[in-house]
Amino acid sequence: MAETSGVKKSPIRRATIKDVPFILVNINHHCSQPRIVNIALAEYEHEPDKVLCTEEMLEKTIFGSTPYAKVLIAQTEEGIPAGFALYFYNYSTWNGKPGIYLEDLYVQPKYRRNSFGSALLFALAQELVEIDGGRLEWSVLKWNTPSIAFYKNLGAIPMDEWQTMRVDGTQIAELAKLSPGILE
Amino acid sequence: MAETSGVKKSPIRRATIKDVPFILVNINHHCSQPRIVNIALAEYEHEPDKVLCTEEMLEKTIFGSTPYAKVLIAQTEEGIPAGFALYFYNYSTWNGKPGIYLEDLYVQPKYRRNSFGSALLFALAQELVEIDGGRLEWSVLKWNTPSIAFYKNLGAIPMDEWQTMRVDGTQIAELAKLSPGILE
Repeated sequence: MAETSGVKKSPIRRATIKDVPFILVNINHHCSQPRIVNIALAEYEHEPDKVLCTEEMLEKTIFGSTPYAKVLIAQTEEGIPAGFALYFYNYSTWNGKPGIYLEDLYVQPKYRRNSFGSALLFALAQELVEIDGGRLEWSVLKWNTPSIAFYKNLGAIPMDEWQTMRVDGTQIAELAKLSPGILE
Repeated sequence: MAETSGVKKSPIRRATIKDVPFILVNINHHCSQPRIVNIALAEYEHEPDKVLCTEEMLEKTIFGSTPYAKVLIAQTEEGIPAGFALYFYNYSTWNGKPGIYLEDLYVQPKYRRNSFGSALLFALAQELVEIDGGRLEWSVLKWNTPSIAFYKNLGAIPMDEWQTMRVDGTQIAELAKLSPGILE
């Protein structure tokens, strides 16, 4: 992550709704479906068929009345966006503290090897300190050993003993039908 | 999860700050340190040394000005709390939707085998439908095969390909020192 190509960086900034096209395009610039996010990332992660996000959905869920995630933008000294980190707050009952979960980190290929990615991670650590949080977490595909080595080098520990379980698709509605109801 | 002992259930309700002692005590009723949450759960998960949460921290982080998590309470027909689910909203860029991450689910031993646990899970599925969310997720220790079998039976899929990474403790401050700053 040395700055081999010498691009000057500005401080990280928070994304606004105007960045939604960038959030789409910067990870999708080779794709013929400009309304669909994450094609490049999806292909890299061997799951190209799982892409369902649109610009409107990002606007609604991140910049709408109930924001479910936050986005930081890494940019050059000239203010050109180079990459982003999309994250949300999680929580641990072990320490009674919030944490930060990094959902997506992406830097445009032409801006790589300039530490934009690690700058975004360090900014998240800064935010975690500011909220008195306890953990910075993210997931990586197990076969992505170069990334895992890089993360370990930053002091990250693999949560080897834990297995994430997921219910999605139509099964959610099936389970919801069995709910006894929630008193508000 | 059949209702073998026949305890009648009320609908799930949302926790208030008055439930904080219950959230502590109901998972901690055999413990000599009443101010420390999660002893029972921590022992069950083979990590008794990791317990740091206090009543005050739960009040501040869940019922304070910035709530980082939500809690549902399962109770008997007489209004006696039997168990709880602590969760937060997460986010997926794959589908551009929020999700629900279940951080802790616990039912008092004397109320088990009455489906309080699955009622809490079903209520979370209901809430997920209400927020137009995409995924209900949680983690389980890999050696806890009875739970994994139960979850699979509910339609949950193990995320076998993914590895969670975590930075915590003093390493967070070390990374934060490297932050280029965040423009607000």
